[in-house]
Amino acid sequence: MTDLEKSMESMITVFNKYAHDGKHGKALTKKELRKLIEAELPNFLKTQKNPNTVDHIMKDLDQNKDDVLDFEEFMPFIAGLTMACEKYCSMSAKKK
Amino acid sequence: MTDLEKSMESMITVFNKYAHDGKHGKALTKKELRKLIEAELPNFLKTQKNPNTVDHIMKDLDQNKDDVLDFEEFMPFIAGLTMACEKYCSMSAKKK
Repeated sequence: MTDLEKSMESMITVFNKYAHDGKHGKALTKKELRKLIEAELPNFLKTQKNPNTVDHIMKDLDQNKDDVLDFEEFMPFIAGLTMACEKYCSMSAKKK
Repeated sequence: MTDLEKSMESMITVFNKYAHDGKHGKALTKKELRKLIEAELPNFLKTQKNPNTVDHIMKDLDQNKDDVLDFEEFMPFIAGLTMACEKYCSMSAKKK
């Protein structure tokens, strides 16, 4: 398996680790999302000063308003975060 | 670094490995995208029977029609592929 394939597998594995079996397959409640972020994205929460960050993320991502996130609602969060990281890194690289 | 953070870093690293320095930062031409897919997603191309797959992907992803993909145009491809994988895996799991 290539590094990129491993990354894709790893994102699914992390989601499945924290998600419960919902009506329509695996899904994350807000509590489970918070646990995932605290454990798997510790550096992200450090940069957020608003204590309601997880509430806001949940609201933004929960497209169908069923109060849980399936993988298709969760993935854009990771994608967005990765894009923000890349932007930040390339800006830092330009400054050097 | 957690597995999820490593995955995010890895997606950026893979992009940077194949992208060239363009006018507005790193970007992938169609040729570079093809190389990336062939080397880093070998299992994906095997499932595609259409020889113009890379052309179609490029056209779909190149939002601003500048004939190259920056990271923000590339990331949805990986996100979409990961969502498709997750759907396929969860369907296979249900059948078992």
